[in-house]
Amino acid sequence: MVAEPSFKRYPRHAGVWKMLTASVCVALLACLHAQELRGHISVILLGATGDLARKYLWQGLFQLYLDEAGKGHSFRFHGAALTTTEQGQEVIAKVLESLSCPRDTAPARCAELKDQFQQLSEYRRLKTAEDYLALSKDIEAWVQREGLREAGRVFYFSVPPFAYADIARNINSSCRPGPGAWLRVALEKPFGHDHRSAQQLATELGSFFQEDEMYRVDHYLGKQVVAQILPFRDQNREALDGLWSRHHVDRVEIIMKETVDAGGRTSFYEEYGVIRDVLQNHLTEILTLVAMELPRNVSSSEAVLQHKLQAFRALRGLQKGSAVLGQYQAYSEQVRRELQKPDGFHSLTPTFAGVLVHIDNLRWEGVPFILMSGKALDERVSYVRILFKNQACCVQSEKHWVPDQSRCLPQQIVFYIGHGELGSPAVLVSRNLFRPSLPSSSWQEVAGRPGLHLFGRPLSDYYAYSPVREQDAYSILISHIFHHRKDSFITTENLLASWVFWTPLLDSLAHEVPRLYPGGAENGRLLDFEFSGNNLAFSQQPLEQLVPGPGSGPTPSDFQVLRAKYRESPLISAWPEELIAKLADDIEATAVQAVRRFGKFHLALSGGSSPIALFQQLATGHYGFPWAHTHLWLADERCVPLWDPESNFQGLQVHLLQHVRVPYYNIHPMPVHLRQRLCAEEDRGAQVYAEEISALVANSSFDLVLLGMGTDGHTASLFPQSPTGLDGEQLVVLTKSPFRPYQRMSLSLPLINRARKVAVLVMGRMKREIAVLVSRVGHEPRKWPISGVLPDSGQLVWYMDYEAFLG
Amino acid sequence: MVAEPSFKRYPRHAGVWKMLTASVCVALLACLHAQELRGHISVILLGATGDLARKYLWQGLFQLYLDEAGKGHSFRFHGAALTTTEQGQEVIAKVLESLSCPRDTAPARCAELKDQFQQLSEYRRLKTAEDYLALSKDIEAWVQREGLREAGRVFYFSVPPFAYADIARNINSSCRPGPGAWLRVALEKPFGHDHRSAQQLATELGSFFQEDEMYRVDHYLGKQVVAQILPFRDQNREALDGLWSRHHVDRVEIIMKETVDAGGRTSFYEEYGVIRDVLQNHLTEILTLVAMELPRNVSSSEAVLQHKLQAFRALRGLQKGSAVLGQYQAYSEQVRRELQKPDGFHSLTPTFAGVLVHIDNLRWEGVPFILMSGKALDERVSYVRILFKNQACCVQSEKHWVPDQSRCLPQQIVFYIGHGELGSPAVLVSRNLFRPSLPSSSWQEVAGRPGLHLFGRPLSDYYAYSPVREQDAYSILISHIFHHRKDSFITTENLLASWVFWTPLLDSLAHEVPRLYPGGAENGRLLDFEFSGNNLAFSQQPLEQLVPGPGSGPTPSDFQVLRAKYRESPLISAWPEELIAKLADDIEATAVQAVRRFGKFHLALSGGSSPIALFQQLATGHYGFPWAHTHLWLADERCVPLWDPESNFQGLQVHLLQHVRVPYYNIHPMPVHLRQRLCAEEDRGAQVYAEEISALVANSSFDLVLLGMGTDGHTASLFPQSPTGLDGEQLVVLTKSPFRPYQRMSLSLPLINRARKVAVLVMGRMKREIAVLVSRVGHEPRKWPISGVLPDSGQLVWYMDYEAFLG
Repeated sequence: MVAEPSFKRYPRHAGVWKMLTASVCVALLACLHAQELRGHISVILLGATGDLARKYLWQGLFQLYLDEAGKGHSFRFHGAALTTTEQGQEVIAKVLESLSCPRDTAPARCAELKDQFQQLSEYRRLKTAEDYLALSKDIEAWVQREGLREAGRVFYFSVPPFAYADIARNINSSCRPGPGAWLRVALEKPFGHDHRSAQQLATELGSFFQEDEMYRVDHYLGKQVVAQILPFRDQNREALDGLWSRHHVDRVEIIMKETVDAGGRTSFYEEYGVIRDVLQNHLTEILTLVAMELPRNVSSSEAVLQHKLQAFRALRGLQKGSAVLGQYQAYSEQVRRELQKPDGFHSLTPTFAGVLVHIDNLRWEGVPFILMSGKALDERVSYVRILFKNQACCVQSEKHWVPDQSRCLPQQIVFYIGHGELGSPAVLVSRNLFRPSLPSSSWQEVAGRPGLHLFGRPLSDYYAYSPVREQDAYSILISHIFHHRKDSFITTENLLASWVFWTPLLDSLAHEVPRLYPGGAENGRLLDFEFSGNNLAFSQQPLEQLVPGPGSGPTPSDFQVLRAKYRESPLISAWPEELIAKLADDIEATAVQAVRRFGKFHLALSGGSSPIALFQQLATGHYGFPWAHTHLWLADERCVPLWDPESNFQGLQVHLLQHVRVPYYNIHPMPVHLRQRLCAEEDRGAQVYAEEISALVANSSFDLVLLGMGTDGHTASLFPQSPTGLDGEQLVVLTKSPFRPYQRMSLSLPLINRARKVAVLVMGRMKREIAVLVSRVGHEPRKWPISGVLPDSGQLVWYMDYEAFLG
Repeated sequence: MVAEPSFKRYPRHAGVWKMLTASVCVALLACLHAQELRGHISVILLGATGDLARKYLWQGLFQLYLDEAGKGHSFRFHGAALTTTEQGQEVIAKVLESLSCPRDTAPARCAELKDQFQQLSEYRRLKTAEDYLALSKDIEAWVQREGLREAGRVFYFSVPPFAYADIARNINSSCRPGPGAWLRVALEKPFGHDHRSAQQLATELGSFFQEDEMYRVDHYLGKQVVAQILPFRDQNREALDGLWSRHHVDRVEIIMKETVDAGGRTSFYEEYGVIRDVLQNHLTEILTLVAMELPRNVSSSEAVLQHKLQAFRALRGLQKGSAVLGQYQAYSEQVRRELQKPDGFHSLTPTFAGVLVHIDNLRWEGVPFILMSGKALDERVSYVRILFKNQACCVQSEKHWVPDQSRCLPQQIVFYIGHGELGSPAVLVSRNLFRPSLPSSSWQEVAGRPGLHLFGRPLSDYYAYSPVREQDAYSILISHIFHHRKDSFITTENLLASWVFWTPLLDSLAHEVPRLYPGGAENGRLLDFEFSGNNLAFSQQPLEQLVPGPGSGPTPSDFQVLRAKYRESPLISAWPEELIAKLADDIEATAVQAVRRFGKFHLALSGGSSPIALFQQLATGHYGFPWAHTHLWLADERCVPLWDPESNFQGLQVHLLQHVRVPYYNIHPMPVHLRQRLCAEEDRGAQVYAEEISALVANSSFDLVLLGMGTDGHTASLFPQSPTGLDGEQLVVLTKSPFRPYQRMSLSLPLINRARKVAVLVMGRMKREIAVLVSRVGHEPRKWPISGVLPDSGQLVWYMDYEAFLG
């Protein structure tokens, strides 16, 4: 990936150039166009004396100098901080002395190169606007003096986020390069704490910098193996085209395990936790690299960023149940100690998280993407593992299977980011899958390691490649800033999309108690988790939860479904979950019976939130439901287009129709939207629906009508005092609601009462009052329309949860 | 499963009874109701001297006698055949002598029991109606003489199917028991050769017997492990309820491997082959037992049979690509020798088949059921293996996983029907799954077998149970006939449903050349196969096919997509598969572009068979297609209800809409069916559609209209000389077709020509003539409506396959 180090050639060229400029061609200079002057680049490292700078960034800048200075550019490196010039210079001098050269550099040559770099580097204090202005002047003067043309300035922010705004303002006002030269600012995470704060920060930065000027660093994108994901997908298109989809991928694991804990960093960690620290950024970036549609041209930053954003859009929203959380046992004590918290203090900050991500597009629908990271685990390792489905059937008895050929043995591709048993970055492809193509100049086959097993198979079962030269992520990213490879960085859109994805989960987990784990090998199976549908759960029930403590309240399973009478009709009461399950069972039984007797089942459904839980239950738990023979009708509808989120039909579409196979022509939305108008009397929508019912439903008698009850006693969209629908001949009516949207369409009471069965679902404490009231009133539909529900010859059943029924 | 053998008690009771009847209670007899008399059962074994009878059936009858005679019934056993009485008696005597007693019976006791059975058994020739009448009289006389009540007669047909009709006629006319006694006939397969012949046979038998009287035997249903599938599912409902679905099952394998070949049986085998011999019956029955919804009461035969039929209904139709076929190399030579075929004769009969079955219901959608059977394979074994998805994520490094606990190791349930390395029937459940419940009286834990690996794991990783007493399938089935356990047999509906399922595949494979395999261990990986979507294929390309022989025609891959001009518009030509792929790519690109520019994509589609291939391509191969933003319109429609198989919309529904997520309200079928009438002028359907188009499609200009071309030059439903639609103002018109159904609705030419892009897809040799003609004519839409397709400002592209374009 990296060309022959260029420092071998650079000094010679530079020498020639100097001769030319200094003596022979001075006269010529004036007639040269500015572009033809040698470009000068200033790199300003802010926070140059900090940890990150000392550990990685100076080395990265040195590498940039080694790689690029020979290619026609001039460089200077300005380390900056708030510390005094003297102290700063001292630190920097030490750092520069400790820089290391590429492995194959002779010591003398290395000393020479370091000396050159030191000559071009300085420390300066940058505090006030004047300091920035002075820097800018200095650069301009230098450029002038050296007969160069200013090409651009890189500001690398290696400072805490609270310092961003000031620095950014100063750069913008006092230190921008002149016209024709570019400005690039590299920013280090954290980029906010949730969607709101990220948005704020982005807006603030956006007032100082153009989007194109900002390079938000996620150093994972600079890790060699991570940076290889897209090129690998591109170079192995032929083999992967048929494999890279839900038809073949069984699961994707994106894992970062650490052995260290958060000790010493709890002031940061308490604010962030593992999801913000690792999942929201590193693991999410990797997820998008794996999941995104591959652009035709993967070297187009724009196309890559565009496709990445599309991948974000397809992510299914996370719910509380999408994650499991853990915290190593010593953490709270560390927090108490480091942050001087009182003895009783217990932190809820997770140090371990497993999250199940689903992607709702045709390519990935149904494939689990598992993101997992934690501190104080049993090993340090990070990888992305794509496990393929076993779609082979091996006819020969298994003892004859040949490991590297049999398609019945595991097939996987692993981007081994680092550490772990292998100990180095690598790309692994099962030999029974295909022989991958990697650029041979920068990737080499890993030497055999007998006895080493990875992901269930010996290393020899894989084609395994590692980088010829291991490179630090920061060196790579600094080079990418220089080469304007924007796709290695987080754009504002990308950042906000990621926070949009993660914030709801973080909010819903804010008060969740993480499972405590001892740390290290002792964790055993305690943190293992399992997924089913959208939900994750720890595999093991913690022992202490099996024995409820004294005084703990009753749990749903302590109650049976309760049967009673309500308004002289059967009433079924239970906790919400059981109630919905019971109602779904009853609907299925009614459906099966109707289909057996009549060949079809006519079901009229209401909108609202309670039915949504029912729809979800029906969609996931009822395999025997005769959907192909079911006709779905609406009991009422709001006068909005069907695709409006307010539409009852839209709830039905999203939570039920999307998941079951009801034929198109068995679906009967209310015609509230005709001729591009909503519920216009002249369009006769109510009559059209009535005619459809009369034509398809024998005797206009639905097999089952599901209703709700409003706190004002309304049902369907029949509100108290409604001039239509409470009696009369009309089957379907237009009505008015006291709430937005005011216009409604509804089945009429007489039509509802022709049903073979009517179920009324009433849930929640809010309904308690009306439930008590309605239990006492007679037949007064004008006051309480629900009291008019009484099937002529059918059956009425009330389904109320305990909160509505018992309060 | 089997109670304490009853013969210990029987003789004593019988003795007491004899004393009573003979001396003391004669007078009492007259006043006893008929029901209170001891019931007598006659078992007539037809083909009593044949192979099956000698090997299994007589033993089964002996077992029936041992099990049941002590429980209040009297029995007699009539062996019958066409052979002379003398010869028959001789054979039978030998058979009866060779019967074996249950394992724990003392020799003397065994001799006594056999003697009793021999006393009750006879041989008689049954040939003519008179013979049957005589048998009937004999039975009646015996019943009378012994003071019994005739309870029923069992006729067991162990004869070739061609003999069925005669025997059945004779039984029906001359050998039915009198009123109050039942008739049961047991029939052995084959039950036909395909759906037609099975139907014929069923009709024929139906003219002699009631459905309830017939017991079609599939002896696999009598195998102990197979018979345990439903009880196992019932007794482990709690554990299985959450597991038995597509959410958890990765695949189901239903396997029967044989080492023997068909030598000596080729006259039968040539007619049947492995699919009819094994898959259509044994493996399909097992499939339904695994897949069916579990009735609440699994001991209700009626419920079981009903649920089984429902499972059949959910089976997705098989296509040619659903199967791979093989034939062991020696087979053709065996056929030539045994059936005196000429030297050059090569049989196409498969002796190996792998078939991929999908079940289109919510429970099983997407789960592959793999049926596989073959002769001359490397081992004899049969089993059903349910492999569960790995839905766990184990946080600890894999070297710490505990085999019987870690949920990351394979989880499976295996119904091990017999043979194989285990050597006996067994039910295996992975220990990391759950501890199964089996009736402890009849199932016991299998003893440890160190070193034995099954399905990738040591035997010790499973809970393994085998029958306490191994029983032969026929003995079990004979007992089930006696106990009227109809669910252990194949009903007519069940049989025909199975043939309905298999016949199209058999037809489509009739001329397929099976892959030759050497047989035994030498098969290596030659027969391994893989699935993808609906299709199966051998994993290995056979070497000989990689080198095309001399004179072999060009293959599609020899051609590139051809670009040319046709009627002055661009033409794209290719082999059908490439053409469809190219068109699908182009449509996707157009869609993506339209959505990017306008936020939506309006696509109008034609009906017919060519688009169906396109729909399938779009549904499976185009992950990036912006379905959520696509509006689907019809270019034309037949005046039939939308759910009619003839409807263009129905093709769209089945082949596309079912598989992609287009929101309900983006789907725009033509309103050919309003007010329960078809294309009535008064209903103004064409105008309604035109209004919908005007309202939703900017300028009524579709982004893409896909058309076809008829052999008469029609396009959409615009036929030559059509008085409407070829010009004028109307956007949508009613037209007449020269073919049924005559009434159509169609977009008009002027509307089509407003599209941004029009693609015309023309495929097949049949279209060659019109393609040549149309290439030469000018703008003559009245004669050839297709010649009027010329978008006003849009683009027209022709997609023709080579057969249509080059002939």
